[in-house]
Amino acid sequence: MSSFIIAQGGGPTAVINQTLCGAIAAARELDPSIRILGARHGIRGLLSGDVVDLGGLSTDQLLRLGNTPNSGLGSTRDKPDPDRCDAILEALERFEARAFVYIGGNDTAGTLELLRARSTGACRFVHAPKTIDNDLVENDHVPGFISAATFVAQAIASVDLDFRAMPGIYVAIVMGRHAGFLTAAPAAWQSDPDDAPHLVYTPEQPFGLERFLGEVEAVYARLGRCVVAMSEGVQDEAGTAFAEALLKTGLADRDQHGNVQLSGGDLGLEIQRALKGRFPKARARVDTLGYLPRGFLGVIDPVDRAEAHAAGALAARRAFEESGSVVLTHDGQRTLPALVPLDRVAGRTRHMPQEFFAGQSTLSERGRGYFRRLLPSRPDLYTPFL
Amino acid sequence: MSSFIIAQGGGPTAVINQTLCGAIAAARELDPSIRILGARHGIRGLLSGDVVDLGGLSTDQLLRLGNTPNSGLGSTRDKPDPDRCDAILEALERFEARAFVYIGGNDTAGTLELLRARSTGACRFVHAPKTIDNDLVENDHVPGFISAATFVAQAIASVDLDFRAMPGIYVAIVMGRHAGFLTAAPAAWQSDPDDAPHLVYTPEQPFGLERFLGEVEAVYARLGRCVVAMSEGVQDEAGTAFAEALLKTGLADRDQHGNVQLSGGDLGLEIQRALKGRFPKARARVDTLGYLPRGFLGVIDPVDRAEAHAAGALAARRAFEESGSVVLTHDGQRTLPALVPLDRVAGRTRHMPQEFFAGQSTLSERGRGYFRRLLPSRPDLYTPFL
Repeated sequence: MSSFIIAQGGGPTAVINQTLCGAIAAARELDPSIRILGARHGIRGLLSGDVVDLGGLSTDQLLRLGNTPNSGLGSTRDKPDPDRCDAILEALERFEARAFVYIGGNDTAGTLELLRARSTGACRFVHAPKTIDNDLVENDHVPGFISAATFVAQAIASVDLDFRAMPGIYVAIVMGRHAGFLTAAPAAWQSDPDDAPHLVYTPEQPFGLERFLGEVEAVYARLGRCVVAMSEGVQDEAGTAFAEALLKTGLADRDQHGNVQLSGGDLGLEIQRALKGRFPKARARVDTLGYLPRGFLGVIDPVDRAEAHAAGALAARRAFEESGSVVLTHDGQRTLPALVPLDRVAGRTRHMPQEFFAGQSTLSERGRGYFRRLLPSRPDLYTPFL
Repeated sequence: MSSFIIAQGGGPTAVINQTLCGAIAAARELDPSIRILGARHGIRGLLSGDVVDLGGLSTDQLLRLGNTPNSGLGSTRDKPDPDRCDAILEALERFEARAFVYIGGNDTAGTLELLRARSTGACRFVHAPKTIDNDLVENDHVPGFISAATFVAQAIASVDLDFRAMPGIYVAIVMGRHAGFLTAAPAAWQSDPDDAPHLVYTPEQPFGLERFLGEVEAVYARLGRCVVAMSEGVQDEAGTAFAEALLKTGLADRDQHGNVQLSGGDLGLEIQRALKGRFPKARARVDTLGYLPRGFLGVIDPVDRAEAHAAGALAARRAFEESGSVVLTHDGQRTLPALVPLDRVAGRTRHMPQEFFAGQSTLSERGRGYFRRLLPSRPDLYTPFL
């Protein structure tokens, strides 16, 4: 009996289960007789035979699962070598898989492209996108981003009010190793030039501690406050991540993909130390938002939810015919999912385009406009006395 | 022309402007002829004459201001000495103040009690409560707490899903110098013994690094994950704050009240270091929630909003007659504001009662029940495969 296999890889998002449920519903509709299986913890479940029946979920169960954030099948960061790829292909044959839909980011697309290139069977490989980093090429934006970006925008707008009420300097360290979209997104809610984020530091622009401190000083002198959004992946002129240097301290670490793990607030501590040195009398606070934006129950955007669902549905429909990567396109009016070849997405990283920046640490109107199009409107904030 | 003066002190909450607007509306209703003035940045504005007209706000403007989080009049952490108290009393006389309503926490109540004790004039002094820490005595709970606690509960429940999907250890460091309510609140959403928070560390119970690591190890071995909520103010058997020791490093600092500023993730870094030492191969992550829970735009609880408004309204009504501190009482059915003498609240700290704990790092059913009564229900989470 042939089967249709779905799995989830990489970090979670608020809407990754919408994509899962969109795929389940579409596969069931196209072929009511097919066995729809979920591999637990991505390719790990495929290899160990740890699969669950997804086809038997009721509509009510699908709705509830879809509205639950974070990977419902479990996830993994494993990236298979050629030997493991062959083992996965054998597993797919055992399951008589007609299709394997893998929901994830860059690394997940890379795994699928490896499998597709080595496969000699009939199985199709389709990547369904998710990431809070918004760093998949070929996409206007990626499911999961809008919800995470809205969390960061709410954080920055809230803290801006706090610092209007009592002076000081605030830095939010935001996830994003190579792409600054999530860090820059709060600029969508700037309705006045003095609204936060006053400064934005992303991996796309060179970072230097002295320039940072000077820019903070100028804003703080002018407004009595300075609210900064900074990517965890900021790097110097030579492209060395600020956090990379911290590897030597033993605090940072590498994951299975060889990436530096930028966890634990070590970048934040360095920034805090620098601010205390330069502004010893100011209220200076650094918060590492860390995992909070990426699957936060309280901030699940309805547009993000619907787009994630549509991406999953298209992934399943196309997986009966061909391999590829689902992308979200935008024609100036509407956002629609489409399929592109896997190798156009796999292993590539999308960066913020240069025209999104007005300077090294400020956004252009074009950059703000992009985020404004994606995020919901800023809630009404009324501060006549500040 | 006599006046009615309102100000805000201390850190912000999501609903502190509801209290402000409740006070404005009630004062206007009781005496339509009185001048209602707001002192900007608390007693600072009183001393410098930096006051704004609040009586002229339209109903629409009041509604908008009330729905905007964080102190709309600006705030301060200044705590006056006797000389400054006399200067404030003189300022109140110049304004022909019949009443001074000051919205804030412990320190704000303390300032008002100082003023009341030294005053020989006709001005009444009423404290309207706010704090995310929930640490005001005589209160069942305090306006601002429910919204902040809901943020923390959402964070813990979201991260628990993340760590169900991929194993590891997570610690959220939560504000709370002396009281653990905010840290323990996520226990409200435990519907199963294996739901996070698996361990809770508050200032009310002695903290030791070795015991902590042992307890994490046991949970992690059993569930493959361990999600911890820890107060920034955890302290050892002798009552020395863990963060107090960090003062020597130059990273921690003292504010104007002589309190250690527990900012900047230094406690988080120590915990991260300890976890990496004990669990070198595990995904171990520490996030310092920092300022995020306390005035977050995305999590403003409607009950909290209404109670904050009612507390402000009662403060204004009673301020025409007598001094005191507004408290929220609970009669088993309803939450109602009431007035108690200022010296019963000023300068005191409410702690979590012993019966809220089952062990040093777990809550009793009674403790969970208290938080369950206050917080909204947990959103439906459906995870049949985890």
